[in-house]
Amino acid sequence: MRIVHVGASGVIGKAVSAELARRHDLIAVGRSTGDFQADIDNPSSISRMFSQIGEFDALICTAGAVQFAPLADFTIEQYAIGLQSKLMGQVNLVRLGLEFLREEGSFTLTSGPTNDDPISLGTSSAMVNGALEGFVRSAAIELRQDRRINLVSPTMLEESSRLYSPYFQGSKAVATTDVVLGYVKSVEGRQTGCVYRIGWSRDR
Amino acid sequence: MRIVHVGASGVIGKAVSAELARRHDLIAVGRSTGDFQADIDNPSSISRMFSQIGEFDALICTAGAVQFAPLADFTIEQYAIGLQSKLMGQVNLVRLGLEFLREEGSFTLTSGPTNDDPISLGTSSAMVNGALEGFVRSAAIELRQDRRINLVSPTMLEESSRLYSPYFQGSKAVATTDVVLGYVKSVEGRQTGCVYRIGWSRDR
Ligand SMILES: NC(=O)c1ccc[n+]([C@@H]2O[C@H](COP(=O)([O-])OP(=O)(O)OC[C@H]3O[C@@H](n4cnc5c(N)ncnc54)[C@H](OP(=O)(O)O)[C@@H]3O)[C@@H](O)[C@H]2O)c1
Ligand SMILES: NC(=O)c1ccc[n+]([C@@H]2O[C@H](COP(=O)([O-])OP(=O)(O)OC[C@H]3O[C@@H](n4cnc5c(N)ncnc54)[C@H](OP(=O)(O)O)[C@@H]3O)[C@@H](O)[C@H]2O)c1
Repeated sequence: MRIVHVGASGVIGKAVSAELARRHDLIAVGRSTGDFQADIDNPSSISRMFSQIGEFDALICTAGAVQFAPLADFTIEQYAIGLQSKLMGQVNLVRLGLEFLREEGSFTLTSGPTNDDPISLGTSSAMVNGALEGFVRSAAIELRQDRRINLVSPTMLEESSRLYSPYFQGSKAVATTDVVLGYVKSVEGRQTGCVYRIGWSRDR
Repeated sequence: MRIVHVGASGVIGKAVSAELARRHDLIAVGRSTGDFQADIDNPSSISRMFSQIGEFDALICTAGAVQFAPLADFTIEQYAIGLQSKLMGQVNLVRLGLEFLREEGSFTLTSGPTNDDPISLGTSSAMVNGALEGFVRSAAIELRQDRRINLVSPTMLEESSRLYSPYFQGSKAVATTDVVLGYVKSVEGRQTGCVYRIGWSRDR
């Protein structure tokens, strides 16, 4: 398969693309890294990237920013970053990528657990991750030509736990190899509209 | 209790405020209707409204717009309406209302089922409703002084079914009296971080 991977140089991205590159043709995209450059916060930058790359069989996104702050201090501008980058950045990859995605192809986006298992300072993250779940389930029923869309929702990765564990009290960090499996299942499997929750400790 | 009700003149709002007015002091807010006027799409209009009204024990919102369109045709501007009105309009009521909400007081917001039980044309609605679920669960753990926040997620109301049933195939319309109970439970009960799903037919 020809796979476009936005965020391939990141903590999650590096592991996912290393695994998928063993069997597929990977095209890496980042703001400054990768085979092609694009800023997902900017829709015209996304369009330019797709017209340079052309048709593909799968798109993976492991990129997207969101801010953290106390509920009482959160500004509209801080909420706007999560909405523009991690939410609409990924939604615009789908919207604008649709015309380049081949039959039976798939989109795989990335969220996180905070919408269901919230943390302090995380109202924007929770909002964005909840929005991504809703969007993916809804987009799945509108896709045609056997095209699919799924979401991978990993908890904090072991590699990121030094950075994040003060904010995720009591969360067990997940092995990168387990997170990779979610992306492999989405890209190589046949399910659609799924949220693959990796490493979650919360009962739902 | 002194209850601020944004959207009190709407289909859901009228029924909810009629029931709560039997036991509480209701202050109705709308863009053009009500005791006070405010446009929730506009944060400075919300701030003005709160400074006019002063302290309260509960805020209910049964207002908020969202657009419907096919996934392939959805524009960024159409997504922005749902994000600005139904999502950030309600989030800004919480953010800016915090300093006026008394101890043990509550916020009650309104979503809908499309994030979990999607419909055609509904990717924006699904995104917004999912975001509201995440936000409410997350804000609940940051509120102090025994203050609470819940979300009511009703399916299509009987009164709205002539308008909406073409879009909600196979959904049973819910009685307005059942929807009212969700708001009563949120305002008069003691739970927080809950999503009250009213009339849902989907197994979760
Ligand atoms: N790490 C975790 O523990 C964890 C857990 C759950 C969820 N997540 C989520 O997973 C996603 C990736 O996390 P990560 O830790 O792997 O991030 P990361 O290490 O910071 O990597 C981010 C990747 O995305 C690219 N990127 C960043 N901003 C971009 C933009 N605006 N446009 C295009 N590419 C952009 C970066 O490349 P350039 O530098 O070239 O731009 C890089 O390849 C985030 O949404 C995060 O919230 C992470
Ligand atoms: N009806 C249903 O079957 C149903 C089911 C599930 C969820 N919902 C959701 O519930 C909410 C209310 O639905 P509804 O059918 O009751 O709506 P509605 O009948 O159209 O009433 C809307 C109410 O909100 C006020 N309003 C509208 N825009 C406003 C704004 N920008 N700022 C302040 N107030 C505003 C209106 O008053 P003014 O005219 O004075 O502005 C009116 O009181 C919506 O978010 C809808 O998606 C509805």
